[in-house]
Amino acid sequence: MRTRISSVLLTPGVDRETHIPFIPDAEIHIDGNRIVYAGKAADAPSFAADKEIDGRGRLAMPGLCNLHTHTAMTLLRSIGSDLPLDRWLTEAIWPLEKFLTADAVTVGTELGMMEMLRFGTTSFNDMYFQMDSVAQAVTDCGMRAMLGYGVIDFDESCADLLPGIDFAEKWNGAADGRIRVNIAPHSEGATTRKCMERSLEEAKRLNVAIHLHVDETQKDKSGCLERRGMTAASYMNEMGMLDQPVIAAHCVWLSDEDIALFAEKGVTIVHNPISNLKLASGVAPIAKMLDAGCKVALGTDGVASNNNLNLWEEMKLMPMLQKGTTLDPTVVSPAQVLRAATLTGAEALGYSDLGLLKPGYLADLILVDFRTAHTCPWNDPESDLIYAVQGSDVSLTMVDGKVLYEDGRFTTLDEKDILARAEKEAQRILEAGGRK
Amino acid sequence: MRTRISSVLLTPGVDRETHIPFIPDAEIHIDGNRIVYAGKAADAPSFAADKEIDGRGRLAMPGLCNLHTHTAMTLLRSIGSDLPLDRWLTEAIWPLEKFLTADAVTVGTELGMMEMLRFGTTSFNDMYFQMDSVAQAVTDCGMRAMLGYGVIDFDESCADLLPGIDFAEKWNGAADGRIRVNIAPHSEGATTRKCMERSLEEAKRLNVAIHLHVDETQKDKSGCLERRGMTAASYMNEMGMLDQPVIAAHCVWLSDEDIALFAEKGVTIVHNPISNLKLASGVAPIAKMLDAGCKVALGTDGVASNNNLNLWEEMKLMPMLQKGTTLDPTVVSPAQVLRAATLTGAEALGYSDLGLLKPGYLADLILVDFRTAHTCPWNDPESDLIYAVQGSDVSLTMVDGKVLYEDGRFTTLDEKDILARAEKEAQRILEAGGRK
Repeated sequence: MRTRISSVLLTPGVDRETHIPFIPDAEIHIDGNRIVYAGKAADAPSFAADKEIDGRGRLAMPGLCNLHTHTAMTLLRSIGSDLPLDRWLTEAIWPLEKFLTADAVTVGTELGMMEMLRFGTTSFNDMYFQMDSVAQAVTDCGMRAMLGYGVIDFDESCADLLPGIDFAEKWNGAADGRIRVNIAPHSEGATTRKCMERSLEEAKRLNVAIHLHVDETQKDKSGCLERRGMTAASYMNEMGMLDQPVIAAHCVWLSDEDIALFAEKGVTIVHNPISNLKLASGVAPIAKMLDAGCKVALGTDGVASNNNLNLWEEMKLMPMLQKGTTLDPTVVSPAQVLRAATLTGAEALGYSDLGLLKPGYLADLILVDFRTAHTCPWNDPESDLIYAVQGSDVSLTMVDGKVLYEDGRFTTLDEKDILARAEKEAQRILEAGGRK
Repeated sequence: MRTRISSVLLTPGVDRETHIPFIPDAEIHIDGNRIVYAGKAADAPSFAADKEIDGRGRLAMPGLCNLHTHTAMTLLRSIGSDLPLDRWLTEAIWPLEKFLTADAVTVGTELGMMEMLRFGTTSFNDMYFQMDSVAQAVTDCGMRAMLGYGVIDFDESCADLLPGIDFAEKWNGAADGRIRVNIAPHSEGATTRKCMERSLEEAKRLNVAIHLHVDETQKDKSGCLERRGMTAASYMNEMGMLDQPVIAAHCVWLSDEDIALFAEKGVTIVHNPISNLKLASGVAPIAKMLDAGCKVALGTDGVASNNNLNLWEEMKLMPMLQKGTTLDPTVVSPAQVLRAATLTGAEALGYSDLGLLKPGYLADLILVDFRTAHTCPWNDPESDLIYAVQGSDVSLTMVDGKVLYEDGRFTTLDEKDILARAEKEAQRILEAGGRK
């Protein structure tokens, strides 16, 4: 399939730029799953397209990368709201998760992908269980994902690690390369040292990243200091984990030394501002991390602590929270936000050809309506894009060169069927858990 | 006109309830501009309707009240982003505002009302200038508003107060009672004591509220202490202002004593969380204020510090910010948020028959689609409503018994014409101000 998007306002994305570039009257040519041209229409080479997309009144930009989520938790949306993290987990979430069958995880993942596509997310990094169901759903839907089996270990049996390894071996590179895998020991506090070390070994052997939760709460931090005599960052560094690609979710309570270490080692920090606020975990010092040279990506976390997968909310909140808590309105620029939501995420997923709209890059992109009442008069496109645009302004989402969402319709997902199945499964789970 | 909304999920709103009530399979009858029935369909009396609205898959709730905004600033959307408040005002906003003609304010207000209606806001409290243009636009559009002429006075001339009084006398109760007025001395820092006292006299004479900015920034607070030898709250109290209805925007830096005083005197505090973050003003201690018994309403502020008028963003952020900054996830309930966004606002606008959906109340209401991917499975309607719903899920907005927005169309505003005029005016203003 050869697709041309014409008459579009192009935002190629942000790499080292300090401002978001915008190219009016642009054209994008896509051949198969790759971009072959993205630039001024006047300079475009001739291109015989099978499919023409009229981009008038729309902005084309790289698809969003949601770097930390537990997608199938959609079925538990809003459960346990307004509880502290430990009670939320032990009283609300864990008692229900044991009723999440393979079929439940399938429909929960489909539901979450529907939501992500509708709001312009094209790839995500998922840590959960029943991961074969997740991988199959991603394969069928056409999204791009990095998937890891969440490993908990309190008895040094490392029992959860085995299915995680099997899963990783089975699915790495599947779905025409749209699926990548990682090893996902839940966190320092929910695993033994033995499990962490074996996770690292396996990640090295498989040449994949490690995805884990780091210092989400103040209690995580103090607990680690008590258990290990050092911070989680030092603990990971000491065992050599930071020489492997690491995706560290949350990092709300990193010390200045931890931040310097993560910057030096190139750890990708995933900022989940809404989840961190809602569970009262705190506000990660993202402005300081960016200043220190850390890689910062964005995530929604699961919807039970959010309660949706609309990454535009995180994109607006990331700079706002830093300005409001540091009392410095100049910190965190729109360009830094866009990079976090696209290229930094894509790089952490292991790609060097994703997250920008330029020739040779994978065609994961979205079109955003900007001729709306709430974005008019479009005085300052950078600020308008990050502070005024709504997730619902996304009118087309393309992954790997294929349109998966357009104007309210999904091309590979049956919306009505998924909503009905999701409601039925959620009802069953809540009843089984004694909540209905 | 007699309208029936059938098969709807009814949220009558929140008064003293600690949880948001939901009534499934409900019906609402509207006769003229009043609700005559709102409750279970099974208990509904017979009602001959001229207009039938099918509410299946939708939730009916009171329309939102935006209690602090400068609507026509839509024309300056995103201008001066990422500057501190004083530079934002003196370098970006004020140099442009002098080019805001009566016509510009008309189209800026129309644009803002379009945006508010689209996201379910039915009434707003506006402080700006060229207020005749604002009042005429409100009259023509059909929204409900409280309007006040912003008064600044540094030389004791009180020159701005005169047009404010003329305006108030001319427009109070206009547009079939949809327009109410207030006296709006900008803030302690931007007015003399003489101006404040005369504002109070006029507010008493006209029997209207006072609308002003209070302790928006730390500098406002320290400046007031220096200038007046007391906090702004004490200053207002000392001159007897707190015995008049007062709408106090921001209140980010109130002391505990100020909070107790505002609670005792029944001052309505307007929380503008996004604007306060974006301008790095800080986070108002709303949880503490609610605990102290303060009246707390919600506002967007103007779009140059937001950058949109979608009050759902404030509704989600209000509880999130309090949880995340107090590290207590139990503070600020969905019911408190809904009350802030509806009934508390309606009461501050001077109504005792607005902000709830019950017989005898004014028919300002909205319908919200809740059969969407991002609100499925609707496990916990309270949390889903505040944390998962998007402003764009509003599919119908009714003010005073008339549908003003439905499924992407406005009944009294010409969208295409307003967008074109707004762009043209903004262009003219930015050019005149040397920004383009």
